Amino acid sequence: MHLAEYLFRRIHQLGIRSIFGVPGDYNLTSLDYIAPCGLNWVGNVNELNGGYAADGYARIKGIGAVMTTFGVGELSAINALAGSCAEHIPVIHIVGYPSTHVQEKRPPMHHTLGDGDFGRFAKMSAQISSAVVILRDKSEATKLIDETILECCRSSKPVYIGFPMNLVQAEVDPSPLEYPLSYEEASPNSMAVEEYAVDLILGRIRAAHNPVVIVDSLAGKPHSLNTTRLFVQSLGFPCFITPMAKGIIDESLINFRGLYAGKLSEPTVFEQVQSSDLILVIGPRPTDFNTAGFQTDLPHIETIKFERHRIQMQFQGVLELAMSRVLERLSNVLDKGPSRSVSTASTNSTPPRNLSGTPDIHGIVSPSSSPPKESLNGEEFMDFEGNIVDKSQPLTQDWIWQRMSSWLEEGDIISADLGTSAFGTLWSRYPRGAVPLVQFLWSSIGYAVGAAVGAALAAREDEKQSQGTGHRRTILFTGDGSLQMTAQEVSTMVRRNLGIIVFVVCNEGYTIERLINGMDEEYNDIQPWDYKLLPAVFQAAPNTVRTYAVRTRAELNMLLDDPSFGPAGHYDETNPPPLRLVELYTDKYDAPESLHGLVDAISKSR
Amino acid sequence: MHLAEYLFRRIHQLGIRSIFGVPGDYNLTSLDYIAPCGLNWVGNVNELNGGYAADGYARIKGIGAVMTTFGVGELSAINALAGSCAEHIPVIHIVGYPSTHVQEKRPPMHHTLGDGDFGRFAKMSAQISSAVVILRDKSEATKLIDETILECCRSSKPVYIGFPMNLVQAEVDPSPLEYPLSYEEASPNSMAVEEYAVDLILGRIRAAHNPVVIVDSLAGKPHSLNTTRLFVQSLGFPCFITPMAKGIIDESLINFRGLYAGKLSEPTVFEQVQSSDLILVIGPRPTDFNTAGFQTDLPHIETIKFERHRIQMQFQGVLELAMSRVLERLSNVLDKGPSRSVSTASTNSTPPRNLSGTPDIHGIVSPSSSPPKESLNGEEFMDFEGNIVDKSQPLTQDWIWQRMSSWLEEGDIISADLGTSAFGTLWSRYPRGAVPLVQFLWSSIGYAVGAAVGAALAAREDEKQSQGTGHRRTILFTGDGSLQMTAQEVSTMVRRNLGIIVFVVCNEGYTIERLINGMDEEYNDIQPWDYKLLPAVFQAAPNTVRTYAVRTRAELNMLLDDPSFGPAGHYDETNPPPLRLVELYTDKYDAPESLHGLVDAISKSR
Repeated sequence: MHLAEYLFRRIHQLGIRSIFGVPGDYNLTSLDYIAPCGLNWVGNVNELNGGYAADGYARIKGIGAVMTTFGVGELSAINALAGSCAEHIPVIHIVGYPSTHVQEKRPPMHHTLGDGDFGRFAKMSAQISSAVVILRDKSEATKLIDETILECCRSSKPVYIGFPMNLVQAEVDPSPLEYPLSYEEASPNSMAVEEYAVDLILGRIRAAHNPVVIVDSLAGKPHSLNTTRLFVQSLGFPCFITPMAKGIIDESLINFRGLYAGKLSEPTVFEQVQSSDLILVIGPRPTDFNTAGFQTDLPHIETIKFERHRIQMQFQGVLELAMSRVLERLSNVLDKGPSRSVSTASTNSTPPRNLSGTPDIHGIVSPSSSPPKESLNGEEFMDFEGNIVDKSQPLTQDWIWQRMSSWLEEGDIISADLGTSAFGTLWSRYPRGAVPLVQFLWSSIGYAVGAAVGAALAAREDEKQSQGTGHRRTILFTGDGSLQMTAQEVSTMVRRNLGIIVFVVCNEGYTIERLINGMDEEYNDIQPWDYKLLPAVFQAAPNTVRTYAVRTRAELNMLLDDPSFGPAGHYDETNPPPLRLVELYTDKYDAPESLHGLVDAISKSR
Repeated sequence: MHLAEYLFRRIHQLGIRSIFGVPGDYNLTSLDYIAPCGLNWVGNVNELNGGYAADGYARIKGIGAVMTTFGVGELSAINALAGSCAEHIPVIHIVGYPSTHVQEKRPPMHHTLGDGDFGRFAKMSAQISSAVVILRDKSEATKLIDETILECCRSSKPVYIGFPMNLVQAEVDPSPLEYPLSYEEASPNSMAVEEYAVDLILGRIRAAHNPVVIVDSLAGKPHSLNTTRLFVQSLGFPCFITPMAKGIIDESLINFRGLYAGKLSEPTVFEQVQSSDLILVIGPRPTDFNTAGFQTDLPHIETIKFERHRIQMQFQGVLELAMSRVLERLSNVLDKGPSRSVSTASTNSTPPRNLSGTPDIHGIVSPSSSPPKESLNGEEFMDFEGNIVDKSQPLTQDWIWQRMSSWLEEGDIISADLGTSAFGTLWSRYPRGAVPLVQFLWSSIGYAVGAAVGAALAAREDEKQSQGTGHRRTILFTGDGSLQMTAQEVSTMVRRNLGIIVFVVCNEGYTIERLINGMDEEYNDIQPWDYKLLPAVFQAAPNTVRTYAVRTRAELNMLLDDPSFGPAGHYDETNPPPLRLVELYTDKYDAPESLHGLVDAISKSR
């Protein structure tokens, strides 16, 4: 078997079906192996977007892959890979390299600095990868590929495989492929320490009057996602999530209480956490945006932090234990008591639709309860909270994101750019199975555009496998400044018929930057674009695309209430959904209230 | 004086008037100092494009600057900076950093990996920079800034200045600004060795029957550009350039003989170099694309290579000497003989127009000699070589690039993407003062789009300084695959009224890749775009833009012959030129003949 085939068969075994990236002369011959190995070459418009797409794909499928060419290609993608590293997203970066004998001779080849050093770019990637390997010798190549891919899974971070051209057709032993790659999560806990910890924690939980659990970002990683969900369900007592943990916990669970972000939380949330006497934190990731500028710790309340390989008990010290095992045992014990949960934790990403028309615990009404509009005066309409408002009332960010809560559907993939979109959707209520694609730590604008492409492809692959149980929507919320960064990837949405629903907040520039410094400075302005024309540039067939410009609340209500606009479910491969591109015009100075608070808090910490 | 003001005043002293980049929270407060220091903030659409623009600007003005934000911004730009490093273009990269006390505390801030390591990204840039500094202490900051900028000038490569937010307003001593930065080129040569070398070389020149000089890329760097031009002019004997040396030598000099690229040269060129008995090479840069795959050396002919700090004589060994001094002395001696030159070497980039209507030594006729078209049958026209051709004859790459030779004007800035555009324009004849923006070594596609933006701004600044001696054209030749990579930067052309002339070769994909591997593979295809719609997306006012689709030779002739399309000279600030965007449709499989040869040669070396 040729080495390239070995690599792509391994990748196929992981569940990957699409490879992102851009061709280049050092990777071309490898590309010939992609289709024969049952994989789909996506062909992004540039490498940065390809990296973002692989990240978005990995957030849905568990792992992703991007292929670039030496030097120019890999460095164009490196910001996307750094984002995957920061956000703990496993992405395999395959880089086509010059032949090994060329590297040894060190000639001034194109795509090098001309100094004979072919190792520079791998060194750069080493800063943002959990493993970097450049294949050199066919005798060890399959072993190195396997180890590197395993490390990608284990670390949930990007890895880098340099693949020299002359090894593409190297003959290798295919027999390792008979055994799919697998790894054990950490070393097994000491039973004695584990029992000690379980007893101790159970004692603290039982002694507490108002215990709460806060689920944070790292609980959502493969090693602990299912046990965390089970634990939260079995506990019954109030559960909160942090901003980076959106999507991990089913927000329709009866013990789900909302988003905890210190003083940026809703008052009732802040009060409940503040008045608790025991806080269990699962998978903490105390980054600045995740903690309202490092303001969420409550040292006066007893806190137990569950990390991947250790449990930190505020008064009992640190125990070296795999948290998933401990959570599992706690769940088993706690679940033996009376059930305090009315809903099962969902690990299924596309559950049946179940949008009730009754107000839920957040007081938000679903769209099916929209009042009849014809009973109103022509200049008025009833908003989704039942208030009669002027039709010409302009859009505001706070209104948009609250409105979206009732429009989102089960299983939605919500790709939101940092920026008002990411912070806005934080406060939207997520239906069961909804998944965010947001970089709260890395925070690279333009990310969400590429990520949406990757995620939509992943969702389509899952639909095919599940034989048409319904279309899962991919929704992109981005800003004008963000979309411009990576706008060409809308071309891939068109080319691959991805039917993404794109909302662009058009407010003439970089809003977070305005709030931080230079509210009226030209450096925070951008060129206004006519985004609605983009699909025409990309030569989308007229029946495959719809575009809209929305300036008032009434218009957005009309659009979202129109069943032909947004519902999932009635699309399939032969009837793909259209690309929908919606411009949302808001005032240049308008921003979500929570963002003002965050900017104030962060400014102090920066 | 605040440290930010010090930095930007230093940059202003270098002749820089525009700073490229994108705002971000870690650089925002520095941006407030740009306008007060007499600089213009360009505001690119993304950082990669900003880096390319700074490179293009530097190729016209001698040095450029780009400003990004920590992590996300700098890594998005890093491929552009790597290109500047490979191509020896001096660009100052200023990166807005978190405050020094934050870096010391190592919190998991946004735009980091969350691991407390704030030094990773500087380490990545160190691989592609000639100096990297992160300012830490105001007492040494001005000295570090000065040293780093000097190193940028001296090395003609990018440097990196990390600028923490808390130092922006640090009070520093402004007195060093009284002395503009300057450096001495190398240490002075030993007079004895220099005289020995000059005598030796003069002896070899006088003994030779058919000496030739080949000017290569590094002759064009500041340390040797003027002396090289003087030397070539004083020599009188045949002068050739390499692909990377386009633009260094006035191609209208009587002793200019064309482009030497081994067997890819025109036969007469190849023959002349082959039959010489002494070759002087100035500023050699023997990269693969510059040497037809390392095939240009002629070891059987005596060769003297002039490098920046040494002279290599094939039979006499290596002498450690600054070449510029040696060239200068040689010129002085040689020029005392009878003048063998009819034209003065031009260091002026915008000389008066002087397009004669007579065939030049290349046999190419300028457009003013176009035959009257009305005398022909409606289906025929006379091409620029006087042949009668069918009007419907399709465009081919070889025809396009030859045709452009007679359309190019003195002083034109020609930004060409790697690709058929860069290789095609190699064989176009350059008028006096024409300058290419091409990455023959780094070869990152999409570069030319951003570079054109930077160069056009630089040209406009020069026009203002020279008080309207005429408009210098910036012409972009790019391919469809290349333009798509960085297409959003056309928005900056619109926003800043740059009036660039854009030619897009539309041939459905990555042509070089096709020639190398996968001629008909889908991975070498791209989504076809309607490029003519781009200016409308970017909301260009209708009177500021013209778009064209050209499919036949007759159509291109008509366009280029139309005086309202392309001439320079009658535009100024109050009457800026329109953006012109021309789609050139060629067959999917068509490529310049020379590119086929190069791909064959390179395939063997890779």
